[in-house]
Amino acid sequence: MDMENDTGIMQKLRSLFVPQIPPALEGGRVQLLRGDTTSAAHSDDEDEIRKSFNFTYGQPLVQFVSQNLVDGENEENICPAVTRVGVVFGMEAESPGAHNVIAGIFDALKAHNNKSILFGFVGGTEGLCSQNALVVTDDMLKSYRNQGGSDLLEQSSKKIHDFQHREEARRSCITLKLDGLVFVGGCSTNTDAARLAEYFKSRKCQTTVVGVPVTLEGDLKNEFVETDVGFDTVCKFSSQLIGNICLDALSAGKYYFFIRLMGKEASHVALECSFQSHPNLVILGEEVATSNMTLSQVTNRICDAVQARADKGKYHGVIVLSEGLIENIVDTQLLIQEIKGLLKEGISTQKCLSLLSPWAAALLKSLPLLIQKQLLEEMETEGLNYLSNIETEKLLAKLVEEELGKRKEAGTYTAKKLDSVCHFLGYRSRGALPSNFDCSYAFTLGQLAFFLVMHSLNGYMATVTNLSQPVSKWRCGAVPFTAMLTVDKRPKDCNAVIPGELAIHSEKVNLKGKPIRLLLQNAEKRLMDDVYISSGPIQYQGPGSDSRIMTVSIEAED
Amino acid sequence: MDMENDTGIMQKLRSLFVPQIPPALEGGRVQLLRGDTTSAAHSDDEDEIRKSFNFTYGQPLVQFVSQNLVDGENEENICPAVTRVGVVFGMEAESPGAHNVIAGIFDALKAHNNKSILFGFVGGTEGLCSQNALVVTDDMLKSYRNQGGSDLLEQSSKKIHDFQHREEARRSCITLKLDGLVFVGGCSTNTDAARLAEYFKSRKCQTTVVGVPVTLEGDLKNEFVETDVGFDTVCKFSSQLIGNICLDALSAGKYYFFIRLMGKEASHVALECSFQSHPNLVILGEEVATSNMTLSQVTNRICDAVQARADKGKYHGVIVLSEGLIENIVDTQLLIQEIKGLLKEGISTQKCLSLLSPWAAALLKSLPLLIQKQLLEEMETEGLNYLSNIETEKLLAKLVEEELGKRKEAGTYTAKKLDSVCHFLGYRSRGALPSNFDCSYAFTLGQLAFFLVMHSLNGYMATVTNLSQPVSKWRCGAVPFTAMLTVDKRPKDCNAVIPGELAIHSEKVNLKGKPIRLLLQNAEKRLMDDVYISSGPIQYQGPGSDSRIMTVSIEAED
Repeated sequence: MDMENDTGIMQKLRSLFVPQIPPALEGGRVQLLRGDTTSAAHSDDEDEIRKSFNFTYGQPLVQFVSQNLVDGENEENICPAVTRVGVVFGMEAESPGAHNVIAGIFDALKAHNNKSILFGFVGGTEGLCSQNALVVTDDMLKSYRNQGGSDLLEQSSKKIHDFQHREEARRSCITLKLDGLVFVGGCSTNTDAARLAEYFKSRKCQTTVVGVPVTLEGDLKNEFVETDVGFDTVCKFSSQLIGNICLDALSAGKYYFFIRLMGKEASHVALECSFQSHPNLVILGEEVATSNMTLSQVTNRICDAVQARADKGKYHGVIVLSEGLIENIVDTQLLIQEIKGLLKEGISTQKCLSLLSPWAAALLKSLPLLIQKQLLEEMETEGLNYLSNIETEKLLAKLVEEELGKRKEAGTYTAKKLDSVCHFLGYRSRGALPSNFDCSYAFTLGQLAFFLVMHSLNGYMATVTNLSQPVSKWRCGAVPFTAMLTVDKRPKDCNAVIPGELAIHSEKVNLKGKPIRLLLQNAEKRLMDDVYISSGPIQYQGPGSDSRIMTVSIEAED
Repeated sequence: MDMENDTGIMQKLRSLFVPQIPPALEGGRVQLLRGDTTSAAHSDDEDEIRKSFNFTYGQPLVQFVSQNLVDGENEENICPAVTRVGVVFGMEAESPGAHNVIAGIFDALKAHNNKSILFGFVGGTEGLCSQNALVVTDDMLKSYRNQGGSDLLEQSSKKIHDFQHREEARRSCITLKLDGLVFVGGCSTNTDAARLAEYFKSRKCQTTVVGVPVTLEGDLKNEFVETDVGFDTVCKFSSQLIGNICLDALSAGKYYFFIRLMGKEASHVALECSFQSHPNLVILGEEVATSNMTLSQVTNRICDAVQARADKGKYHGVIVLSEGLIENIVDTQLLIQEIKGLLKEGISTQKCLSLLSPWAAALLKSLPLLIQKQLLEEMETEGLNYLSNIETEKLLAKLVEEELGKRKEAGTYTAKKLDSVCHFLGYRSRGALPSNFDCSYAFTLGQLAFFLVMHSLNGYMATVTNLSQPVSKWRCGAVPFTAMLTVDKRPKDCNAVIPGELAIHSEKVNLKGKPIRLLLQNAEKRLMDDVYISSGPIQYQGPGSDSRIMTVSIEAED
């Protein structure tokens, strides 16, 4: 038995999977329909966007349809000339399915002209600026098709944030004679792409800059974008784990599980997973922020749930929260801002403690030591990444234990001491083998990105809509970046986004949307009745293999 | 969209899955063949076993074959009388597939006589002793077929360790007029069953006591038992996670992952997972124990690996270790023994520190604070369970960081500071939806358990062999418990097993077996070449859905 070759059956089988493409792309020739010109997403922002995006503002929406379906009018011929395209993995590119964006671009580009070349920039924006590119070949791609991770190109570790970087990127594109440059990533990557598209246009650079929505947190979401590549796989993967934990809770009958899920800026993962697995309680950052809840109020909410269950003789439970929660709780948010402010002034973490306001110092000291340490030390980490390292699930478990202790002393809680187990279901899902949905969605977006380049649609993001339906009903199009830009209105230092920054911003969970209404309707039943779901592992064949993102389906019905 | 009813597709689909059964069981009538009488596994132990198991020692091996395949001789008629059987989930019963043992017993029992009754004892041995049983019905079973967890009956929280318990169990069986009592679990559960079978026989109790091997750690393993129910699912599930982490490591290119896997007594899970996912390094407790390695030697072994990879420009990696490792490292093992000894004398953890030998105190103080705390506090937990809470992966990550720092100062290591991420892939797999293999294996064993009761084979464990082959080639039989009992020869206090205890003992990974030889052959390649495998999620249909346990297949070839 040759173990080295006999293994990885699934990996090999998946590499042979043929992603589905919507009818518009079948046959390899598409027809472009231009729609109305676009304006700013928020009319208040229009002036500012116009000023900063003078060259790319207000382009029309476009739609791609099959060339046979529509009459000749509006038709534009696709040039079968040799095309040179570059692809860049942005910071959010390590999402299951990202490799299929490359495969989509590659296949479309080679189908048009076999001499066309796809360059992959190694290390994302750094590779772009330093002209570190590899020529993607069929052979090279073979083992990356329908696989997880982003290891073919690695992702970016930094944004393109200044003039020098943009100029370096322009020179790379000129040197490599690129017709197009495709950015693969989430909000920050596509904001980079938007700025680069504007810059290139202003400098009369011929390279068409386009974007593709890929981020496992699913927060690049707006009236044009239903979801992002990677989100489906990550939610199914995480729901599988939550389902397992629920069953474990039920079997043992004596533990409370506190599970933190990915989602720094928004709680889409936690929301979707709660539909797929039915934990007893889910605490979304958006709800907490909107109702201005304090840490003590969040703690009490959980305690009330535990107590209600104890009254029915249930001493186990599963509580889900999102990664960004701690930044949405009103008092911890203020504490974090104070610490960040001090660190920004170059004050050491040791000194930090003595310089906090009495209020903040008192809150910090009231927290478990582990969390105090994490808040001070991890905060030095750049951007939002520190959030991954603050174990909010342990913080809440500890506070709930303490509060129940107090209630017990007061005689209002009579059950035994809470036994808690904490999990952060974080980055283990990043490398997961993508679902059929993500494989096909990413591949389709890659193909669209190529057609955007072919039509010189500079400053556009490829979009696929009607995603709650089978692939045969998906609609293909593209949206100008400028229609998705907004000015951040959040208070200073609330998070890593510079206040007032014009960008494609992370979309929060809509508290008035149908998914939340549905969640609330069923909250009591889920809390008390243990209607847990074992959603099971992602299937690639047979029933369940084509199941859709539940929140997207619910939103589609709204 | 009715979300409450639209969810859990996979859960429902799995409940409809029909487990495969080997040819011997098809048609529902089996023929029993008795083989040679058995002796003790180790001839040294024979006297002791004979003495303690006077009534059940030395029974023959039995084999079940299809009634049509063999001539009439040896045939015994199966009585179609009403049969009453009880089933008990032992301590290790929370293994994916355990519910299918119940389904197997139930279906066989009802096929023989629809008036027969299956009792499930609630809460394991406690339910048995207190006569807390429910009558299993088809309707009740429906939603538990092919599901994870053990929530239909819950598992035992204690062993049957004294005369009083055995007597209570006997009374329960008499009260419920049980023809048979089936124990579902691992080494400790089946040891309980062996003692109860002997006790019942000595007291002329008519209830036939039999066992079924179910434990996700896969350590009930010997010349008769190839593997246990749950092991396949857990290894596939964990390998999926390791594969994801490997891809994450490769994509980011800058982290070292330290992953601890279940396996308190033996490293079977870690070994199997390393075949399925190819991490860079796997450290098995058995290897460390046999070569008498110290904590510093284990640390240096990892550092050497990190250094060798850094020399080739690789700054990421995945290191797998088993839960029991810390008890196999020669110096930490001695430290643990000292602490346990003091705690056993009723000394408080606070005082413990000052009473340790200077050597042990020095070692303890040299460990990271977190681990010191865990070693002192968790050790108070009963049995082996404390091991789950000692984060050996964090201990080693920390020590490796320190050692590399020293090497850097000495100029022998020149790469950057090690960035480590630690994971314990523990109990999230317990509630996993079982693989097709585990569903069929458990169901088959359940059916066999019923036939053992029908043939009054008291003191037997149901066995299925040839498991590396398709179900159509599986062989069915049973083995007397007494042929699997051994006297523990391990030094006093080495772990929770009382020294010299006669029991069915956990089987360590065989360091001379073919799996280990193969692992060593490929160790260099795996260490240096990143031949990671994404084994992917467990599939229930299509290719890969019937893949077999790799170590079992390799052993079968040996």
